[in-house]
Amino acid sequence: MTMRPITSTIAFASALEIVLDAATPIARTETIPLVDADGRVLAGDVIATEDVPPFNRAAMDGYAVIAGDTAGASAAAPRLLRCVGHVFSGHVPARGVGAAECMEIATGAPMPPGADAVVMVEETARDGEMVRILTPVSAGQNIGRRGADLTAGELIVAANEVLNPSRIGALAATGVTRVDVFAKPTVALLSTGDEIVQPGERLAPGQIYDINRFTLETIISRHGGRAMPMPAAHDTIDALVDRLDAARVNDIVVFSGGSSVGERDLLLDVIARRGELIFRGIAVKPGKPTIFARAGTTPFFGMPGYPASCLSNAYMLLVPFLRKMARLPPWEPRTIDVPLARRITSAAGRHQFYTVRVVSGRAEPAFKASGDITSMARADGYIEIPAETEAIEAGTLVRVTYF
Amino acid sequence: MTMRPITSTIAFASALEIVLDAATPIARTETIPLVDADGRVLAGDVIATEDVPPFNRAAMDGYAVIAGDTAGASAAAPRLLRCVGHVFSGHVPARGVGAAECMEIATGAPMPPGADAVVMVEETARDGEMVRILTPVSAGQNIGRRGADLTAGELIVAANEVLNPSRIGALAATGVTRVDVFAKPTVALLSTGDEIVQPGERLAPGQIYDINRFTLETIISRHGGRAMPMPAAHDTIDALVDRLDAARVNDIVVFSGGSSVGERDLLLDVIARRGELIFRGIAVKPGKPTIFARAGTTPFFGMPGYPASCLSNAYMLLVPFLRKMARLPPWEPRTIDVPLARRITSAAGRHQFYTVRVVSGRAEPAFKASGDITSMARADGYIEIPAETEAIEAGTLVRVTYF
Repeated sequence: MTMRPITSTIAFASALEIVLDAATPIARTETIPLVDADGRVLAGDVIATEDVPPFNRAAMDGYAVIAGDTAGASAAAPRLLRCVGHVFSGHVPARGVGAAECMEIATGAPMPPGADAVVMVEETARDGEMVRILTPVSAGQNIGRRGADLTAGELIVAANEVLNPSRIGALAATGVTRVDVFAKPTVALLSTGDEIVQPGERLAPGQIYDINRFTLETIISRHGGRAMPMPAAHDTIDALVDRLDAARVNDIVVFSGGSSVGERDLLLDVIARRGELIFRGIAVKPGKPTIFARAGTTPFFGMPGYPASCLSNAYMLLVPFLRKMARLPPWEPRTIDVPLARRITSAAGRHQFYTVRVVSGRAEPAFKASGDITSMARADGYIEIPAETEAIEAGTLVRVTYF
Repeated sequence: MTMRPITSTIAFASALEIVLDAATPIARTETIPLVDADGRVLAGDVIATEDVPPFNRAAMDGYAVIAGDTAGASAAAPRLLRCVGHVFSGHVPARGVGAAECMEIATGAPMPPGADAVVMVEETARDGEMVRILTPVSAGQNIGRRGADLTAGELIVAANEVLNPSRIGALAATGVTRVDVFAKPTVALLSTGDEIVQPGERLAPGQIYDINRFTLETIISRHGGRAMPMPAAHDTIDALVDRLDAARVNDIVVFSGGSSVGERDLLLDVIARRGELIFRGIAVKPGKPTIFARAGTTPFFGMPGYPASCLSNAYMLLVPFLRKMARLPPWEPRTIDVPLARRITSAAGRHQFYTVRVVSGRAEPAFKASGDITSMARADGYIEIPAETEAIEAGTLVRVTYF
């Protein structure tokens, strides 16, 4: 029945380094439809099985010709060619093109045998079945060659690349319908504490609604993970050990609450039963009472129960950790450099992530208290205040990192 | 059976202005679970129905006290208070605190009647049922006041704001489980052309796989829309008019292909039957043969069939249009200023979106041809080359906009 103060904290940079070192990129893969693959990380090289395009095709609407037949053509001295047919996209030319002949051709249609160039329609004049060619073309001109986009055997997208609209398009080009991607790390979520009630239920005296489950689930989905909310547990060591055992089948476990110094700060005992504490307490504000541990072999975050602390730490520690596990590149949030609207003070000895709103080109302090979700919800982003800085004067240029 | 060249084009800036003017923010709303609401646009103000927190609570672990009892306390001259119980989070204090008494309290637990401050556990020393207070506190210190985060009747998140992790958390804080959001605009998609085959089917001679359906679906999902792919249609006016009639129930219609100058350039005839052409042909590269029209009252994009042209125009025109319809703020892609690795030339008179890779801090040209999806898939972003610029020398500083 003794409270356990956090007597030593580690620097934020050390905490981040420890956390990142512990993140093992996921090895599990899954096969999913190509249309669902945006933002996913390819698990293996994809090699083109066919040439794209699979045939020589017209790159312009116009006339397929033998380039030599157009030599010296000009508006003043056009070459006259006989049009011997047409070929539409998706169809096969009925015949070839011989000397002094041409064939009307649509963009994307297969070149007729014999023809080796296309004269753009804008550089021709039609006169019954005769076509006046107003400009010369060279062999190959206005043709998309077979395999020019992708050649059979060529790498289309490499393993570990993140799929995006154009890469998905390149895979579709060779007829791919499903892709092997790395699985999304699963993240078990539990908001501990007898005071926590799920929205939709009624609050009894002394109770509050669960916030962290929602902020964490949203941020996990944004950064390549799959949140797995757990059912509530009674605030006892045995109940939490049971939950932890159920949670450990996931790739990451995140409990919030229970990591402060209260008499009922149970997470330390829970970890002692099942794993190994790596650190407890970070010299940051908000977010000081944070645990990082292993439960068996599963990485475990004990996030502060306070919503602003929990979400701030999720941005600063969980997101980098999760993205590394998910094999996504580091997050590159937008930043803007603006003057600070009002003087702010900062906790001595703690690296502070101070939330701000950007209003009329100035950073307005938005931080209220670690317990207040509105400290984050009414902010656009945050500025960082190093541990050794105790105040920043109004007008100082600060870098705002957008959420 | 005549080909219709694009004889006049409009400037890209004009095209964008026309398109944006035609975008009507969506009015349809839907009610969805809060956990699914990240990135959605709130359809109405949400007002707090309860105070958050709903009671005065301890903001620290420690001892609830009457502030006056701690006046003058120091390590050298501690104040002695009798501990009369404890209160855990989620529970209700069994009794109040009187003069010279204190109560052990956990962060988040309701304050016992009579107590008006909390002394942090780090600033106390326990001695049986007596607690030595080593520092004075003032009334209200280390207490989270009822309603300090949100007060009943207060605006939590306003209509038209985009939900994010912290705003979702603020809504959860007051017990919200479902939210009214604006519906995502639906976008009917059809890749026209007899040559287009869906991946998974076999290519006959002269055929190619559909790429645009995949690139467009992905980009639409990223920017607040819901893609509705249509079944393939035969390349006849009647078949396409039928498809357009089916497509028009959506908020936006995007057909690709069929907008070039081929004999079978049918979209103009299709539009003539059902709506009004607004423009055809933009002075851009890639993406010149682009139609914007109304089919009845539904905005219609006729995108080029060429995959790089189609996707480039999707980024430049469809994304701004879609985001305005979806009530999302304009897209703010990341940019970087780097020297150009090699000299490039640009089509005279056309604003060019030239794709590049960023390699070792330099912009490497990535553009191959408008027909080649690899022009986009092997690029990181693009640089813009104004219509009047015909070449950019190696070493010139260029601004790369990331996709």
